[in-house]
Amino acid sequence: MARVLGKVFLVGAGPGDPGLITLKGKNCLEASNVVLYDELANRELLSFAPVDAEFVYVGKRANGCSAIQGEIEAWLIREAYSGKIVVRLKGGDPFLFGRGGEEAQALAAAGIPFEVIPGISSAFAVPAYAGIPVTHRNYSSSVAIVTGHKASGDEVTWSALIESVDTLIILMARQNLRKIMNRLLACGCDPARPCALIESGTLGDQSSVIGTVETLADLGEQSQMLGPTLIIVGEVVKLGRDLPWFYAASRHLGPSSIATGNESPRFAGQAR
Amino acid sequence: MARVLGKVFLVGAGPGDPGLITLKGKNCLEASNVVLYDELANRELLSFAPVDAEFVYVGKRANGCSAIQGEIEAWLIREAYSGKIVVRLKGGDPFLFGRGGEEAQALAAAGIPFEVIPGISSAFAVPAYAGIPVTHRNYSSSVAIVTGHKASGDEVTWSALIESVDTLIILMARQNLRKIMNRLLACGCDPARPCALIESGTLGDQSSVIGTVETLADLGEQSQMLGPTLIIVGEVVKLGRDLPWFYAASRHLGPSSIATGNESPRFAGQAR
Repeated sequence: MARVLGKVFLVGAGPGDPGLITLKGKNCLEASNVVLYDELANRELLSFAPVDAEFVYVGKRANGCSAIQGEIEAWLIREAYSGKIVVRLKGGDPFLFGRGGEEAQALAAAGIPFEVIPGISSAFAVPAYAGIPVTHRNYSSSVAIVTGHKASGDEVTWSALIESVDTLIILMARQNLRKIMNRLLACGCDPARPCALIESGTLGDQSSVIGTVETLADLGEQSQMLGPTLIIVGEVVKLGRDLPWFYAASRHLGPSSIATGNESPRFAGQAR
Repeated sequence: MARVLGKVFLVGAGPGDPGLITLKGKNCLEASNVVLYDELANRELLSFAPVDAEFVYVGKRANGCSAIQGEIEAWLIREAYSGKIVVRLKGGDPFLFGRGGEEAQALAAAGIPFEVIPGISSAFAVPAYAGIPVTHRNYSSSVAIVTGHKASGDEVTWSALIESVDTLIILMARQNLRKIMNRLLACGCDPARPCALIESGTLGDQSSVIGTVETLADLGEQSQMLGPTLIIVGEVVKLGRDLPWFYAASRHLGPSSIATGNESPRFAGQAR
């Protein structure tokens, strides 16, 4: 008798604001039997799943070890093998710094059917909510994305990066903020180059600090940020001053509430 | 008597598959009075707007001139000034190579309330649908995005780019395919480095060609692609061979159709 396989959906939860999940992502949650979710996936999204769905928290520590990753992959395979519809809900986009590639490989090797549902990456959305377009015809026609959690090593070729792109985005940047800014200065980056540190981007408690490559480490440490944090370096940062739409939206009592709220689950991450 | 201002929503339509628009993006369309849409925004998304909404096509040619851009901005302002809820529906993400930054500046200067609703960028989603994660712990921890339509000039510092990032993504690459690959070879890029050319990514007629920096121009020209095209260069391209989930999904008759389809409007871009 043939075994009925389930299926795994590697779903991007987006950057925080639950209204930024995709329609396909929502549909997958609605059809799920079990959801394995990360630290950075907004938990409000879980309310899209059926009431009898099972939820498994698989958040990892900052130094998350491979053993845990292996367990997640084994869990996905086991659930799908038992015929379930499995959603692997990952913060941001599953294929950008999300280890979604490794999970997809494990599923493919085990013969489990799967699909990838992209998510809005914080790399672009968090600057956007701070009023900063990552590219702009007058200021930037190229963008690079790296992570900041390995900033002390040689994994990132900062000098070539600074030379080659107009806008540099550094994810997971909080813990190594000073190291990162020192590396940029040491490799010849203009100390006056504008940059911003944005915490809890796209959520109601989003906050940001604007400075320069020279001043950002001090400013960031003074602000005592604790949430997920992103650095953006480049001339485009200047535009944020003139485009504070996310903060302004909370003062504009008008059609914005019609257009983007009042759904279930409530979009806690929106400007109110 | 105070004039009642409307509001403009700069909405990312995503990369093609209409199921990849965000919930907020859909909500904005449902509340809209008028929608100004681009060439690359999937027109199926327009069916989310009310039946009495007005639709304005503002697609530009590849060499779209500033005059037209200025007209779009004036149109947005005029409609919002008359009290309407205006959706500016842009392919991909409005703040990544979408001139959304310029539109936001024009709106801010005119005192028009606006919000930015990020969209899934083709930069990550198109490789994902071809089974290619743009980063992977073993192959890539950095990614850069540039556009290919200015490849003949000095706007892109190819040699520094190749040196500084593991994965390079080139949007709008079709017309300058051979020029781009020649520039990469001329600046010392390994001719054997894997790369892929992906056409109409995330849509039902998606197709891709896998090669190397040395062979891709020939292969691409032979394939006579006509749709929107993206190049991805880097070791991660190799993974696409083992992760052809989008093509496989069409052969797997199972829960995938429950989880991601059968909504109105029909998701023509999905694997069937």
